[in-house]
Amino acid sequence: MVNHEPNRLRLVRLEIDSHHQAIAFMRRDCHVCRSEGFNAMSRVELTLGAHKVVATLDVVGGDLIAPGTIGVSESTWKLLRAKEGDEVVIAHPAPLESLAHVRAKIYGHAFSRDALHRVVDDIVGGSYNDAQLAAFITVCAGANMNLDETTYLTEAMVSAGEQLHWGHAQILDKHCVGGLPGNRTTPLVVAIVAAHGLYIPKTSSRAITSPAGTADTMEMLAPVDLDMLSMQRVVEREGGCIVWGGSVNLSPADDVMIRVERVLDIDSEGQLVASVLSKKIAAGASHVLIDIPVGPTAKVRSKAAAEVLGELLVAVGKRLGLVVRPHLSDGIGPVGAGIGPALEAWDLLAVFQNEHTAPQDLRERSLDLAGHLLEIGGAAAIGKGRILAEETLKSGAAWRKFQAICQAQGGLREPPTAQHQHPVVALRDGYVKAIDNRVLARLAKLAGAPASPSAGIYLQARIGQWVHRGDPLFTLHAETAGELAYALDYHAGHPDVFLLSEEML
Amino acid sequence: MVNHEPNRLRLVRLEIDSHHQAIAFMRRDCHVCRSEGFNAMSRVELTLGAHKVVATLDVVGGDLIAPGTIGVSESTWKLLRAKEGDEVVIAHPAPLESLAHVRAKIYGHAFSRDALHRVVDDIVGGSYNDAQLAAFITVCAGANMNLDETTYLTEAMVSAGEQLHWGHAQILDKHCVGGLPGNRTTPLVVAIVAAHGLYIPKTSSRAITSPAGTADTMEMLAPVDLDMLSMQRVVEREGGCIVWGGSVNLSPADDVMIRVERVLDIDSEGQLVASVLSKKIAAGASHVLIDIPVGPTAKVRSKAAAEVLGELLVAVGKRLGLVVRPHLSDGIGPVGAGIGPALEAWDLLAVFQNEHTAPQDLRERSLDLAGHLLEIGGAAAIGKGRILAEETLKSGAAWRKFQAICQAQGGLREPPTAQHQHPVVALRDGYVKAIDNRVLARLAKLAGAPASPSAGIYLQARIGQWVHRGDPLFTLHAETAGELAYALDYHAGHPDVFLLSEEML
Repeated sequence: MVNHEPNRLRLVRLEIDSHHQAIAFMRRDCHVCRSEGFNAMSRVELTLGAHKVVATLDVVGGDLIAPGTIGVSESTWKLLRAKEGDEVVIAHPAPLESLAHVRAKIYGHAFSRDALHRVVDDIVGGSYNDAQLAAFITVCAGANMNLDETTYLTEAMVSAGEQLHWGHAQILDKHCVGGLPGNRTTPLVVAIVAAHGLYIPKTSSRAITSPAGTADTMEMLAPVDLDMLSMQRVVEREGGCIVWGGSVNLSPADDVMIRVERVLDIDSEGQLVASVLSKKIAAGASHVLIDIPVGPTAKVRSKAAAEVLGELLVAVGKRLGLVVRPHLSDGIGPVGAGIGPALEAWDLLAVFQNEHTAPQDLRERSLDLAGHLLEIGGAAAIGKGRILAEETLKSGAAWRKFQAICQAQGGLREPPTAQHQHPVVALRDGYVKAIDNRVLARLAKLAGAPASPSAGIYLQARIGQWVHRGDPLFTLHAETAGELAYALDYHAGHPDVFLLSEEML
Repeated sequence: MVNHEPNRLRLVRLEIDSHHQAIAFMRRDCHVCRSEGFNAMSRVELTLGAHKVVATLDVVGGDLIAPGTIGVSESTWKLLRAKEGDEVVIAHPAPLESLAHVRAKIYGHAFSRDALHRVVDDIVGGSYNDAQLAAFITVCAGANMNLDETTYLTEAMVSAGEQLHWGHAQILDKHCVGGLPGNRTTPLVVAIVAAHGLYIPKTSSRAITSPAGTADTMEMLAPVDLDMLSMQRVVEREGGCIVWGGSVNLSPADDVMIRVERVLDIDSEGQLVASVLSKKIAAGASHVLIDIPVGPTAKVRSKAAAEVLGELLVAVGKRLGLVVRPHLSDGIGPVGAGIGPALEAWDLLAVFQNEHTAPQDLRERSLDLAGHLLEIGGAAAIGKGRILAEETLKSGAAWRKFQAICQAQGGLREPPTAQHQHPVVALRDGYVKAIDNRVLARLAKLAGAPASPSAGIYLQARIGQWVHRGDPLFTLHAETAGELAYALDYHAGHPDVFLLSEEML
């Protein structure tokens, strides 16, 4: 065996934000590059004390990087827990053996339990670059995963992160399989259910491919980046919470994968199930209600597809000791008036406060779900949950519980309002026959949602409504003129987001 | 509609080599970032005169990037044909509509002709980032593409690049479906065939997942980066050439995809067929012989799989007007003694010069293939090609033709020799029962091949041979101590690359 001294270089923080991808920058003439045979796009392992990162190498000419140093992106700097002046050891990383399992899957071999554990552990350890993550996500997408594989993936994702344990026999949870812009029932459901003394510690996601996730919307009303201890305190005090799952490190593989899923703009069925259930199991849930909206432009497009998905959720849940109840709902149009974090938060406030302007569809859907959960939790007899939920909202008990939860999470706050607002009007008279949820979501995203929290869409016409030429259909909200222009450009190319017809539905 | 002035920033060349991925660096507080809502990993469109590039954005804090400027990677700088002081216009790129076809394919919908043309055009135009390329490659991999799709992909790859046209009715070509380390027959075959006045203008690839491609090996003996005009001059003069396909811009989509395939370490059947045939069609071939080595650790592992692949190659070729002849060969062990660009080049020289130390297996395989092509080309009667090929080699006519081709390509040269050499010996007595081609290829790659051209493996024992404890099995060649150590580390973990047995085969 050849023995050689470890290669050391001084770390330089370049303050380059390359998202989660770890990147290192080395001089082309660096002795380490030369002696190790590193090239552009080589994978390099950096070690600082107990922390190791595998980064992708960019090779730099000129004097951007001083001799004897190695530049690193922000994510690399943070993963290494580095401070100014630190030296790192640079080496070839061990070959990424788990990628062989991804390749075998491409060639039609099902993943074993062990294979998925290895892949997920390597993903959480930061060893997969974007291309490798994309290959894994793609090969798991569509209908490519069987029940065993989906179960193993779920299990692997649970065990790669933290797990919460509550001192109660029954822990309720809910989840909505996205696809309906503005469908932000969670805060209402949690407040109603928790008002009856049931436990519902809700961890939510940020948006993957939608203009807002529940965590994005909730963040407009209260802090959601709670650590595990804070979350536990909130739940012990109030019975419920609505926090961002990523900040408590439940199923961290999901958080890494979501970023690449966003670039690819795909959600896959197997990964959807694993993503949802791993978060629920890691969060310590015993019973989970899963809302599956069905509609031609929703994520799930047919009742048959929803039933297949529901059965898969139930089956995987059962194998892992979780009771899953699917709940199919109407997914024809958007829910509520606002689409985008702040605009959806305003809708929530209107429903909580029983305002007559509150969007009735959002209210109705929330009461259906809360009623179902009240029955599962034993707070209402079968068939009586919906009535109890409505009383809880009407009486102000839900609003008081929500305020208490917000207070416990760090304080209730008022959502922001966008600087740029631009109405889009009907170009002819007619009934609103259909609304294309996908184009609507795209428009809200181009306007800046969810990164720009006040950006999005405020709907002013609903399906079935008669509009006159010149009546506003919706208003685009944006934080910058550039984003507004971009959304308007896209709308000019896709003018049929609202389908108007002279005949009634 | 909102009208707004285009955003301009001064371009700064950062001399960062990020391979083919276009990257731009903007200050976090840059007015363009803020007004357009750009974030880390945003896709940004840069326009300079007639040139447009869609780059991935890294957002930079601190003073790495001066106010009013935008930094770009080398590939971005080159694609923009930029010069110092140039200003670029920065905008949101149009949404990548063709990615919808990739998503549809994930969900089981076959690609249409139009869909594959759009995807391939966007890939060649640089609009796909690594994650998106990886998704496309993955979804085309395994047995996921039908005959129509493979034909459309081939067609799209041909039409996205240049095409050669020769003034001759019959243009021969050959290709080997890789998987056997050291199997470098092409220069021998081209020289023998061209010595009989047949036309065989060969464009070869660089390595994808192997320690050397034919272009890498040939480059050790003569320049291979010829432009189209130079290539045509060589072929008109000598009847044959061996050049790198990438430098003549035939099927450029393949060159982009190969880089990501390398990261993923996958070759897919549909893409393999499209990659091979698109290059052949673009190179103007009329008849192509395709060598498919079959063996337990070769790329194609069974005769049945080879026949399926052969039939697919024939079928797609037929639809596109190309006569394809598959040629199954023994793929049990490595071919020749050298593995790696320079080491393989030394083997070729020994065979051309009829040295008694020349690897006989490489010689035999080359004569088989050349004989087959001499028959296809009408230079030999059916059944007589092999004899003619052998005479051509023995007489020195093949070596003279090869020297003439090298001369025409820019001059024959001597391959380099590695500085670091480390023998690996047998740990016990026994017959060499098997050699693991995949571990062998991995070792050669870890030693630095093909980026370090003299790196690789020199085999000193063959299958069926009796070795004593302490006899050399092979020697690792490396250009740097680090690469040698890395290969030795891997070997320590995979000591069974040579399987020794006390019983004869």
